[in-house]
Amino acid sequence: MSLPRQPRKDATAWPESAVVIGTGLIGTSVALALRERGLAVWLQDRDEAAARLAADLGAGALLPESGPGGGPADVAVLAVPPNAVAAELLAAQRRGLARAYTDVASVKQLPLDNARERGCDMQNYVPGHPVSGRERSGPAAARADLFLGRPWVICPQPENDLQAIDLVTGLSQACGAQPVAVSATEHDQWLALVSHAPHVVAAAMAARLEQAPEAALALAGQGLRDVTRVAAGDPAMWSHILAANAGPASSVLRQVAAELEQAADALQLADSRDGQAGKHVAALLERGSAGVGRIPGKQGGGARAYQTVQVVIPDTPGELARLLAAAADAGINVEDVGLEHSPGLPVGVAELWVRPESAAQLTDALAAAGWPVRR
Amino acid sequence: MSLPRQPRKDATAWPESAVVIGTGLIGTSVALALRERGLAVWLQDRDEAAARLAADLGAGALLPESGPGGGPADVAVLAVPPNAVAAELLAAQRRGLARAYTDVASVKQLPLDNARERGCDMQNYVPGHPVSGRERSGPAAARADLFLGRPWVICPQPENDLQAIDLVTGLSQACGAQPVAVSATEHDQWLALVSHAPHVVAAAMAARLEQAPEAALALAGQGLRDVTRVAAGDPAMWSHILAANAGPASSVLRQVAAELEQAADALQLADSRDGQAGKHVAALLERGSAGVGRIPGKQGGGARAYQTVQVVIPDTPGELARLLAAAADAGINVEDVGLEHSPGLPVGVAELWVRPESAAQLTDALAAAGWPVRR
Repeated sequence: MSLPRQPRKDATAWPESAVVIGTGLIGTSVALALRERGLAVWLQDRDEAAARLAADLGAGALLPESGPGGGPADVAVLAVPPNAVAAELLAAQRRGLARAYTDVASVKQLPLDNARERGCDMQNYVPGHPVSGRERSGPAAARADLFLGRPWVICPQPENDLQAIDLVTGLSQACGAQPVAVSATEHDQWLALVSHAPHVVAAAMAARLEQAPEAALALAGQGLRDVTRVAAGDPAMWSHILAANAGPASSVLRQVAAELEQAADALQLADSRDGQAGKHVAALLERGSAGVGRIPGKQGGGARAYQTVQVVIPDTPGELARLLAAAADAGINVEDVGLEHSPGLPVGVAELWVRPESAAQLTDALAAAGWPVRR
Repeated sequence: MSLPRQPRKDATAWPESAVVIGTGLIGTSVALALRERGLAVWLQDRDEAAARLAADLGAGALLPESGPGGGPADVAVLAVPPNAVAAELLAAQRRGLARAYTDVASVKQLPLDNARERGCDMQNYVPGHPVSGRERSGPAAARADLFLGRPWVICPQPENDLQAIDLVTGLSQACGAQPVAVSATEHDQWLALVSHAPHVVAAAMAARLEQAPEAALALAGQGLRDVTRVAAGDPAMWSHILAANAGPASSVLRQVAAELEQAADALQLADSRDGQAGKHVAALLERGSAGVGRIPGKQGGGARAYQTVQVVIPDTPGELARLLAAAADAGINVEDVGLEHSPGLPVGVAELWVRPESAAQLTDALAAAGWPVRR
């Protein structure tokens, strides 16, 4: 396969108008983000109520049957399920809705194959995927800031006009995202690894809880909540995504299944009295720990790791606000806040995430202000 | 197996003194919690530096060779790995360190079997497990509030003196925990389900990231971080725990492995073009979603579910404090706080978790105070 064309670092053709087909969570969030940047936006959805709700939220105007006023929009965004992209693309191109087209599906090879098969115009269709999401869905959950600072994968094709690549790149930047050029094949393999397979793994673990005794679930801690959280996402939507990325996703799932099967074997073989779960399990745990450490961001041990400062606070209105005001008085920017407490108890533990170089300063400042901060 | 004796609702024999053998995270946290309640606490660890560090943290005094001053302590807590409990118990009983003994291992059948085999005194040994922990380990990570409001499993044995059960129950309450009587068999099965197997599942998924391209990991979102987070825990400690609960843990792991294998099969068989990942995968996702919903607490959809109110705030010191002060002014208790933002961007989204009945009131109050709150 030929190398993808690289989008320019800064798009030269910043779009001034857009059509959004499909006003679910992602489509409406794109539209809201573009409206904030002053673009003209037209909305359409098979479900007219969804399009109207998006319009009421300020995401744009309903798309007239005759198309956008004043000729084609700069970009049309097809925010529909992966297997519906090609049909919507063809329809939109036949209507001449825009000068460039993109989609937001979380798989890329399937819509591309479908589009070529259906005879879509491949000069102006530049596939894309804003890598951002939530457990919730629908226009009401949309947020203009959903894409801020997040990667937005763009898969330029050999047939693409440079202008179309520019317009789609500019669209991603107008939404506050960081465009990154990736081939469709790599995208699908990578997303299988970092999103699609983990979703099924979480679901498979969570499914074991369906029939569990309530007393067992009462012993659940944060660990179980974290491992299973994503499994609360919309099963129908994820079923579509997984079907559209069946090959790469099933390959990762088989590897994880094999690891778990081998771990179970090793555990049963190991003499439990010697305190070792067998070299195999220990090695798996080491590899897992190393894997977590490679994820960028505060919760992994990656490059942007933060430190926490912990303070015990009374569970009454205003205490956390007072604590954060004390941090602000010390001139320290708190990157994230966690608050652990159990209902019915009079105290909780606030965790303030700060850049490592600020941790000692914050601890000193809070202690000086009389807060029970753990050193 | 005979039913466990129930601990009384409120222990009548609240302990006044304790010996803690093993000053790692849990042992030191127990000691700190007991010191806060004014108990006399003596500390011992094979690693003298660890015991001294715990003592320096205010967790108690080093245990003299002659034992606690003034005769046996009320309770001795064996905070050592599961496979070391019986030997330490026997040694402690021979020294006559306490009137009652308990342990804190996260498996219960193995230490019990070992203790009976070694001929420990079973009248005054009441196994226990405070269900609480962190990814960190060692005395420096200890917290007096680690057990606040958390369950503390106690496994009373048929041979136990009532007084010993009372003392161990009182110990758990002195630490702020909620004692709950469970048989050792059930405890081990339940913990395999809600803690030990999920740990291996997270590690198996995280292990797939070890060799992943950096560009793939750059696409990781919160979902992957959550699914894999616990795998950052100490591999050596978890290897001990898993070995000690090999049977129940491997049984859950085999079930999860089979689910994943079947999901992979179903994905490969399903015609990806029809948009359905096969009934099997869809059903698994539904079951997973139902399972998550059964976990109590805010992050599952369980009985104590909360609602969030979202507000876009500038990423500058003091903004979150101002927001929380506004919530406090409205008399609303914020149960938890989340803050999403990407480094380098000027805004973030604060998520305030409140009881469902407070959500509308908070939204109105914040909007009235001029905050850009999403309705």
